[in-house]
Amino acid sequence: MNEMRVGLLGLGTIGTGVARILIEQQELIARRLGRKIVLVAAADRDLQRERDLDLSGVRLTDDAAGIVKADDIDLVVELIGGYEPARSFVVGALENGKHVVTANKALIAKHGEELFPMAADKGLQIGFEAAVGGGIPCMKALREGLAANAIESVYGILNGTCNFILTKMENEGSDYADVLREAQQLGYAEADPTFDVEGVDTAHKLSILAAMAFGSKIRFDEVHTEGISRIGAADIESAREMGYRIKLLGIAKPHFDGDDEYVEMRVHPTLVPLDSQMAQVSDSYNAVQISGDFVEHTMYFGRGAGERPTASAVVADIMDIASGFPDGIAHLAPPMGFVESSRREVPTLPMADVVCEYYIRLMVRDKPGVIAAVTSILADHRISLEALIQKERHASQSVPIIMLTHETTEGNLQAAISRITGLETVDKDVLILRKESAVA
Amino acid sequence: MNEMRVGLLGLGTIGTGVARILIEQQELIARRLGRKIVLVAAADRDLQRERDLDLSGVRLTDDAAGIVKADDIDLVVELIGGYEPARSFVVGALENGKHVVTANKALIAKHGEELFPMAADKGLQIGFEAAVGGGIPCMKALREGLAANAIESVYGILNGTCNFILTKMENEGSDYADVLREAQQLGYAEADPTFDVEGVDTAHKLSILAAMAFGSKIRFDEVHTEGISRIGAADIESAREMGYRIKLLGIAKPHFDGDDEYVEMRVHPTLVPLDSQMAQVSDSYNAVQISGDFVEHTMYFGRGAGERPTASAVVADIMDIASGFPDGIAHLAPPMGFVESSRREVPTLPMADVVCEYYIRLMVRDKPGVIAAVTSILADHRISLEALIQKERHASQSVPIIMLTHETTEGNLQAAISRITGLETVDKDVLILRKESAVA
Repeated sequence: MNEMRVGLLGLGTIGTGVARILIEQQELIARRLGRKIVLVAAADRDLQRERDLDLSGVRLTDDAAGIVKADDIDLVVELIGGYEPARSFVVGALENGKHVVTANKALIAKHGEELFPMAADKGLQIGFEAAVGGGIPCMKALREGLAANAIESVYGILNGTCNFILTKMENEGSDYADVLREAQQLGYAEADPTFDVEGVDTAHKLSILAAMAFGSKIRFDEVHTEGISRIGAADIESAREMGYRIKLLGIAKPHFDGDDEYVEMRVHPTLVPLDSQMAQVSDSYNAVQISGDFVEHTMYFGRGAGERPTASAVVADIMDIASGFPDGIAHLAPPMGFVESSRREVPTLPMADVVCEYYIRLMVRDKPGVIAAVTSILADHRISLEALIQKERHASQSVPIIMLTHETTEGNLQAAISRITGLETVDKDVLILRKESAVA
Repeated sequence: MNEMRVGLLGLGTIGTGVARILIEQQELIARRLGRKIVLVAAADRDLQRERDLDLSGVRLTDDAAGIVKADDIDLVVELIGGYEPARSFVVGALENGKHVVTANKALIAKHGEELFPMAADKGLQIGFEAAVGGGIPCMKALREGLAANAIESVYGILNGTCNFILTKMENEGSDYADVLREAQQLGYAEADPTFDVEGVDTAHKLSILAAMAFGSKIRFDEVHTEGISRIGAADIESAREMGYRIKLLGIAKPHFDGDDEYVEMRVHPTLVPLDSQMAQVSDSYNAVQISGDFVEHTMYFGRGAGERPTASAVVADIMDIASGFPDGIAHLAPPMGFVESSRREVPTLPMADVVCEYYIRLMVRDKPGVIAAVTSILADHRISLEALIQKERHASQSVPIIMLTHETTEGNLQAAISRITGLETVDKDVLILRKESAVA
């Protein structure tokens, strides 16, 4: 049996985890796979860092480009992150006939449509299970386990930092800014947390999940993306009073309008029922709910980040590719779950046409008639209410009004909000969240 | 590309679902797989039954043995259930060079160790995703997605009937017998519910999961198995008061004693923390928690039975095998997740050596000194208590005492219980449940 020879780009947190598995679990892997996987070389800019791991059998180098070209390497693991030079190294690996495994969601979301055809042309595989949901084998479930289904919806808690912050805000009744500071001190959030808290990381992952679910092309730039930075402790409390918990969800659904097909993709704070599985996903855990026309609801839960869980997913990908190495690669499921030639351009549903239920927090001057004025505008737009809470008077002049609406289109809701904020008794600053009752 | 020709044994509920997917999703399957899967023939004793499905392109027959031998069939789907004649047909299919997919957990649990080597010798695959967890792709997750991990524990709610009954008992405060009757009327429980409610079905599934997790042989007969039929509404209420919910769990863990390795396997009603993911799994849903040394906790949730979810898993298996057909089968993961020659005999840990925390319900005569007598026996056995609840006096002479213990071995606990029931103030009828705090 041919052994599979692996080269690693990046010996940071995840890279060290991958090296650790390949070295420490070598015998277990061979028993499962029937062949050996050998870590031949690893590149990192900092080779002096203490990694608590015996790398004496591994060629260590600061020359990543050398690994991409090396004759004694069959598969390159890219763990550098970001767009460049990661993209160039992956292209180089493919050009040199090497399979690729990566944990880089930004790379796949932005450059996947360049990389997948390149790999397919050369009979090579690209594995990226670790890019979405960390250690959770959710891509494999979607691509292979649920392959007999037309996918009806994907809901994901895909960013551990946001989920950690929201959990802590609820548990402690604290506001966003305070919890963010604490999360940064604990190392759960970056110094510049924008990518995480503004939903960009979730949008990267969602765009990959959506394309895999629907056989469409990855359209990261078209994901409607909102983050969690405007949510206050009072919103979490109000949601709870009404039976909901706020989670940052990535949501993807197919949308059919006669013969026209669209993909709906959005990332935003979302109210989910308190007794749903999704509501129980706390701290830095991730979860993905995938529903199909035959399987109904399924959910996948686990660690979305971290050295060991992410490395688990990277090595699972290496093992999949090794199982078909060197002759059976054509028999693996294609990376995006559909044969490359059958993947289609499917337009993204314009956000104005998306149908949602809404949570609206207005600040109003506490004068007679203001609620009547607001609700009559909603009625004009045929938006009906599920609940309305008027909170007690604040120290300031304005008081919050919280409304939960029944379903309407985003365009209609925004038109109504624009008229409502035109009222002189209503502040311009409105918080709009969305509600999903269909999560399991 | 070669198309894959399928023959179906059994056109009952699941068989009809499988036929439905293969016919209705033919185009979707071809886009995902790059080749066609064709339902060539189907056998059933009752060909007249209304199936609401156009089977005009399919050869219908009551001769299952003919399908097993037919020259125009590459893969046989066994959906007859039970041990025989299912086993003979599967053996026949393998002898005739056909791959096999089955949803039959009893068959795999009892005869898997005969069937897997036979398939391996002939370069054939046996798929059985549908046998455990219905539509949930949990076998694939364990076998492939988590393949880089040494598995540390498997916890599963694997029987929808039991979970439905326990959920209803809690929601309605009803006793077991009443809810069972209702479940039978609704078709959620069989007329003879023994296999489900006494844990046999869960034990079948657990024995398969354990062998796949640890690379050991399937030892269904050695699973310690207890069902839910002795649980009362009062137990569910007492558990809840103490912060737990009762679920019928299948539990498998590896156990190391020096150089000796054992597999711990048990099925019994189990107290899980109310705020765990596992506790939220209600009605007929199934869930499997799998923890590994790198991935930490993961959980898989979905429908554990039913025409459409189970058929989803059967067809996923067919697609996996079709992807490697006819030349790449050797590159699929082996059915039990370990190369057949590396699967080992690992002894089952004797139940007396299993360490648990316990829920004990005693009925005692309400006399002074009885609690002191009971707790002093526990102290003799070095069993310490986490909680003790004495319930209000019943109409009868005896009153229930509920105790939660800290960890001890089953052997030690049983010895103490035997002394306790020897007290003349304590009834012989004791209910012992177990508690698992480690579920996620």
